[in-house]
Amino acid sequence: MNTFLTQWHRAVFERDRQVLNDLLADDVSFYSPFGWKPKEGKLMTATVLNTVIQVFEDFTYHRQLQQDSDYILEFSAKVKGLHVKGVDLIHLNEAGKIDQFEVMIRPANGLAALGEEMGKRLGAMG
Amino acid sequence: MNTFLTQWHRAVFERDRQVLNDLLADDVSFYSPFGWKPKEGKLMTATVLNTVIQVFEDFTYHRQLQQDSDYILEFSAKVKGLHVKGVDLIHLNEAGKIDQFEVMIRPANGLAALGEEMGKRLGAMG
Repeated sequence: MNTFLTQWHRAVFERDRQVLNDLLADDVSFYSPFGWKPKEGKLMTATVLNTVIQVFEDFTYHRQLQQDSDYILEFSAKVKGLHVKGVDLIHLNEAGKIDQFEVMIRPANGLAALGEEMGKRLGAMG
Repeated sequence: MNTFLTQWHRAVFERDRQVLNDLLADDVSFYSPFGWKPKEGKLMTATVLNTVIQVFEDFTYHRQLQQDSDYILEFSAKVKGLHVKGVDLIHLNEAGKIDQFEVMIRPANGLAALGEEMGKRLGAMG
């Protein structure tokens, strides 16, 4: 497995915030499954990703496709007992850091449950 | 571009129903962005795909990644004036026919608009 995926899996599965932080570009844009406009910057993106990593249960990657600086990673998980599938669409900049991160989730009831839980947790930080 | 993608683009962009039909395995499973359980079979899958092709405006493919018999195709479109992004996750069987087709869409408001429009059109057929 290539270096990026090895590090990414370490960030996700070992919940290693330092590794996650090192993988993100300062100007990363995060495209969430909920809204159209991206969230901008490393702090915002790391906060969202660290939160979603805690919300997902039984998180597993399946097909993980790469082409040049683009990765599309298929996953499954559970959210409050509901099955979800999703993809991470990741683009790396020339320094090998993530500068675009986009997430899509199905089905609609799992997406809604995730939105509710994320709202609770991120709202509680503010 | 390889044969499958050439044919798939013809089915989508020329709205060629015969080509679409030829690409689908009889036992294809369709995983929609709305529900967890797949819709089964060629007729059901072709009906849903032909309908969504008519609903999407300004449909464009972006990153199109392949690994062996798996394709993940990123797209953008508009639904009733709303921007959407999505992915098609496609698996081909040994005969080169689509036996799994999964779709994910973001953001939530575009997904809801698509669901409403699909319900109207597929409901009207019944």
